[in-house]
Amino acid sequence: MDTMSDELVHPERDEIRIEAVLHALADPVRLHLVREMDRIGVGVACGAIELPVTKSTRTHHLRTLREAGVIRMRKEGTSRIGTVRRDDLDARYPGLLSAILSAES
Amino acid sequence: MDTMSDELVHPERDEIRIEAVLHALADPVRLHLVREMDRIGVGVACGAIELPVTKSTRTHHLRTLREAGVIRMRKEGTSRIGTVRRDDLDARYPGLLSAILSAES
Repeated sequence: MDTMSDELVHPERDEIRIEAVLHALADPVRLHLVREMDRIGVGVACGAIELPVTKSTRTHHLRTLREAGVIRMRKEGTSRIGTVRRDDLDARYPGLLSAILSAES
Repeated sequence: MDTMSDELVHPERDEIRIEAVLHALADPVRLHLVREMDRIGVGVACGAIELPVTKSTRTHHLRTLREAGVIRMRKEGTSRIGTVRRDDLDARYPGLLSAILSAES
């Protein structure tokens, strides 16, 4: 029985909201996470990206990104593999993700 | 004596931070304000844009936008005239503002 199944719910492309995307990316730790995931390109074990935060804070940030529709996460054994939803974001908000990820912080 | 002079401090272009811009625009009321200001184009009396919020909430939102570097405000008598800092934002984050303002909410 998978009691954690609600953890990996993702909004459909047309359910993504600009306010949620902007809120998700307005945090420096989350922005760093997304930049790293985008740079690596393929799915990346979310625990492998170095962050100066606790595990529970990391989990919170990953959840915020996933629920906003910025990243997709899937389970692989005990790992969570994350990828940036570039296709969905580019389709819904052309130019937005590139503008944000290429910005100086 | 102008005890309110600190109210109208603005960050310089190179002091603008992407996280602050995204945070400022992640709120639906602030996003609406900026869309209206951008649509009108010339300076607009900030009190003239209809919003379903109290005056103090409006003031808070305008301050957040100003401090993030998204809008410029100047006093004109008892009014506050606001304009979107499109030149500064386009120079610092090419494509960002257009992508956000043209997005479906």
